[in-house]
Amino acid sequence: MTPLQDLDLILKRVRRLLASGNVEQAAALISALRPAEAADVVSALHPADGADVLEELGAEERAGVVFELEPGIGADVLVELDDDERADVANRLGTESLSGFLDEMAPDDAADVLQDLEEGKAQQTLAEMDEPDEVRELLAHDEESAGGLMIPHVIAFRGTMSAAQAIDVLRNTQPDEETAYYLFVTDEAERLVGVVSLRQLVVAGADMPLQDFMRRDLITANVDTDQEECARILSKYDLLALPIIDDDQRLVGVVTADDVIDVLQEEATEDLYHLANVSAEEDVDDSVLTASRRRLTWLMVNLPTAVLAAFVVSFFEGTIAQVALLAVFAPLITGMGGNAGIQTLTLIVRSIALGQLELRDARRTLVREVLVGMINGLCFGVLVGIIGYLWRGQPALGLIAGVSMLANMVVAAIAGTIVPLFLKLIKADPALASGVIVTSFTDVTGALAFYGLATIMLSYLL
Amino acid sequence: MTPLQDLDLILKRVRRLLASGNVEQAAALISALRPAEAADVVSALHPADGADVLEELGAEERAGVVFELEPGIGADVLVELDDDERADVANRLGTESLSGFLDEMAPDDAADVLQDLEEGKAQQTLAEMDEPDEVRELLAHDEESAGGLMIPHVIAFRGTMSAAQAIDVLRNTQPDEETAYYLFVTDEAERLVGVVSLRQLVVAGADMPLQDFMRRDLITANVDTDQEECARILSKYDLLALPIIDDDQRLVGVVTADDVIDVLQEEATEDLYHLANVSAEEDVDDSVLTASRRRLTWLMVNLPTAVLAAFVVSFFEGTIAQVALLAVFAPLITGMGGNAGIQTLTLIVRSIALGQLELRDARRTLVREVLVGMINGLCFGVLVGIIGYLWRGQPALGLIAGVSMLANMVVAAIAGTIVPLFLKLIKADPALASGVIVTSFTDVTGALAFYGLATIMLSYLL
Repeated sequence: MTPLQDLDLILKRVRRLLASGNVEQAAALISALRPAEAADVVSALHPADGADVLEELGAEERAGVVFELEPGIGADVLVELDDDERADVANRLGTESLSGFLDEMAPDDAADVLQDLEEGKAQQTLAEMDEPDEVRELLAHDEESAGGLMIPHVIAFRGTMSAAQAIDVLRNTQPDEETAYYLFVTDEAERLVGVVSLRQLVVAGADMPLQDFMRRDLITANVDTDQEECARILSKYDLLALPIIDDDQRLVGVVTADDVIDVLQEEATEDLYHLANVSAEEDVDDSVLTASRRRLTWLMVNLPTAVLAAFVVSFFEGTIAQVALLAVFAPLITGMGGNAGIQTLTLIVRSIALGQLELRDARRTLVREVLVGMINGLCFGVLVGIIGYLWRGQPALGLIAGVSMLANMVVAAIAGTIVPLFLKLIKADPALASGVIVTSFTDVTGALAFYGLATIMLSYLL
Repeated sequence: MTPLQDLDLILKRVRRLLASGNVEQAAALISALRPAEAADVVSALHPADGADVLEELGAEERAGVVFELEPGIGADVLVELDDDERADVANRLGTESLSGFLDEMAPDDAADVLQDLEEGKAQQTLAEMDEPDEVRELLAHDEESAGGLMIPHVIAFRGTMSAAQAIDVLRNTQPDEETAYYLFVTDEAERLVGVVSLRQLVVAGADMPLQDFMRRDLITANVDTDQEECARILSKYDLLALPIIDDDQRLVGVVTADDVIDVLQEEATEDLYHLANVSAEEDVDDSVLTASRRRLTWLMVNLPTAVLAAFVVSFFEGTIAQVALLAVFAPLITGMGGNAGIQTLTLIVRSIALGQLELRDARRTLVREVLVGMINGLCFGVLVGIIGYLWRGQPALGLIAGVSMLANMVVAAIAGTIVPLFLKLIKADPALASGVIVTSFTDVTGALAFYGLATIMLSYLL
């Protein structure tokens, strides 16, 4: 066993290493301890820092340390762990110790952990919890909806209550930190009628009834609202918490700003990765084999379309055999078209994600993008045409390159707009594999237009 | 003039249209009114909704309506406007009415508005403000640092003060909503020593001194900290506000969660756009000409590299003239390599943005990515090799395609890792134009490897 004063020294060194960002070295220090000692050190850190260190340990070792944590601290650390590591720890812990941790968590966090377990183990863990009801309720909602994200059963107040009485109620019930930034005022049917911020409560006169200073122009979301939409509402109205109501206007929970920051980060990462054909699960800390498997899967999507493009080019093998220079120029037409398509696609995908673009704007957006594609196609058509002409003094090559560049830019604009909007229409992720589809369009159209025109005008090229 | 009851009717219709997302129709209704009447309707809406409507109006009309708003309401609406529209309105307003609006804003918001004005007008507007000092101070900080983002001069409390006394102070000073979620406790040298959340204050016993229940393990950021780093700290520790200190540990301001949500959204958009070679300023509502100009600029970056790739291919014109089939296959090698490179690049850029990857991890990350590139290169090399062999029963084409595929995947991994890390090293945006650079590498290497091998093995292909 490590003497106590040494543990203290280790804690100090761990703190210093973390402050300078050396998480790995901090983890190495902790890894040298017995699990119970490591748990002591981790307990003394901020849960977010403790989680950072644990993420660097091996899977079994990590679960061993978490097992030794006090339920309250273990709950906080589990909440801060990355999704993959949290799921792994939860799967390794017995249902008894896991249910102890879950009892100490906010119900929405507990539901997140349970969602990563296999059905049987989740049920048994729930059964061993002290208060499983709220968590059970949350599990019934779609994980990606307001219902899945919210903290249920916030305390509601009556409008006739005075500021001082409300403060007394808060003092006696000691609500969770997360839920206590707004007081929600409901009527006798539990319908939400007003909201009071803690700041309003504190600065109001002690005897003033809540209904005299509560805000009545309520911004709420339905329990079925998508979590991204909740994020947009919170961000648009600069709220710290959003009350969630059911179809009868009854207050059923609250979604808080810190959860929304995580949702926004996740969704932004997902869009970025899906546009680049990367799995949303990928992580810079994945093992080589995991990363390789994940990327292969996504690159595979691209192979058939690349073979299709090659197949199209193969129609023109005879033309290429006569004018090999065409093969020099073709990648320029397809490549520039692909880039223009990705530009449009990215703008559309992000505008959808930020709520700036809806399906009903589809026609107007398409017209706009096609116009932009035509203008840019004309500019690049002339430019590429001049380059084509100058390359070997052949006006025909210039004309062919210019016209096919223009055509491909317009196709790029159409594909870049329609593909994500269509994916949204069928309720798929607008970013998902859409980059591959759009560049397939530009590869095929570019090759068809360029080599096709060249075949027609072959006599001018020889 | 429109009779009052009609204005009321218009307001109701505007509200209904906004609730169903028809911002444009709501704007059309408001556009039909005189500026002063339009201002009345906008004043009755939530500032964020009022801003949405104003964004749909013409530039001059928009400024006309804002001019008619009460200073307090106009300030809120200006804050909610998109950056471009806010800058436009500020430039159209006279310094007198503008300074009136700025007086009603939080100093950080006022500083943002002033930063968009030309120097002379900004100085004059500042001179006409009632309390320009805090704003002047903020303007001295880098716009993208904690100092530029923070709300300065938060109220500080002494640890000996009781909970009830602190509540009295809050009641008397009526601080801004934004700053009042945490109370900061400082010592006699104004150094930050503790923090009390409003919730702790409310649930604490009335006579309890703040120092008995304040948190002492403080999470702070220096005034020079980058705003993205502030966002990461707030998000990591689930804070609603982050105290900002100077080099002497003195409390100088606070950065709040709602500002951070905006920063995170902006940064995610910027990374996404820069990776796709789109200007960070682009907006789905830009005019066709603006959009066209912005995209052309960025596509132009791509043209020289595309011409370079064409130039490389031109060395092999003789080979292509003899085996035109090579031109059918080459895009597959360059295209798949480009996709693999963009996968790696996107992962690296996002991991840097999320703070999961630092420069000191460069070597480990490069080794990992090269290994992934080799495994995937082997898999795709074999696959593409088989396709090449089957295409026309030529083992040599299969071999050439397979080997150049492997080589290009490894180059893709190296370029995708090194380019963003190098950009970060020289303190540039890791996403900026890096997609173009990485695909240039894969286009050139792919062509060199594939056509080069084919030229060496030409006798086996004829």
